[in-house]
Amino acid sequence: MDFSKLNGLIPAVVQDADSAEVLMVGFMNEAALADTRRTGYATFFSRSRNTLWTKGETSGNKLAVVELLVDCDDDTVLVKVKRLGDGNVCHTGARSCFYRALQDV
Amino acid sequence: MDFSKLNGLIPAVVQDADSAEVLMVGFMNEAALADTRRTGYATFFSRSRNTLWTKGETSGNKLAVVELLVDCDDDTVLVKVKRLGDGNVCHTGARSCFYRALQDV
Repeated sequence: MDFSKLNGLIPAVVQDADSAEVLMVGFMNEAALADTRRTGYATFFSRSRNTLWTKGETSGNKLAVVELLVDCDDDTVLVKVKRLGDGNVCHTGARSCFYRALQDV
Repeated sequence: MDFSKLNGLIPAVVQDADSAEVLMVGFMNEAALADTRRTGYATFFSRSRNTLWTKGETSGNKLAVVELLVDCDDDTVLVKVKRLGDGNVCHTGARSCFYRALQDV
């Protein structure tokens, strides 16, 4: 993977492996991607807290990796997941972070 | 939208509005997002060429915007599209840029 284009980060798109909904987009550094592969749970790098975080580590709503795909130029990953816990991925309690149309913002 | 977290850019995830496949991830700056909304075709900011580019402007494989969604913290867009031309989105000729599993890379 090429982490050089974005100061050590790559975008990670999380998609529900069953419904194909896009649930969220986070960023991974090399350590977050390695943790994701090692543990089988989606782990990101928090830009605001400057630390790794495993999605759902407090809520229980972890994201179990079903498939990890990489794009043509090796700078983005697509993480297909099974949602654990109550299945609500967004910190607002919504099922997906993408619950608003742009014209409504 | 919050363009401040990534030096004026936001990730833009492109998803087929019919099949729900994730096709590619690009970046938009404010002008690219405005062009996307004004023209109805997905337009990105090229980090390598430092310019706007409308996907498919040479190949004819434009991406017609069906729906534009924004995430919970306003720093990512999800662009649901209808594929024009031959429908192959990737510059390699593949249908989607995500055609490889990470373990094969």
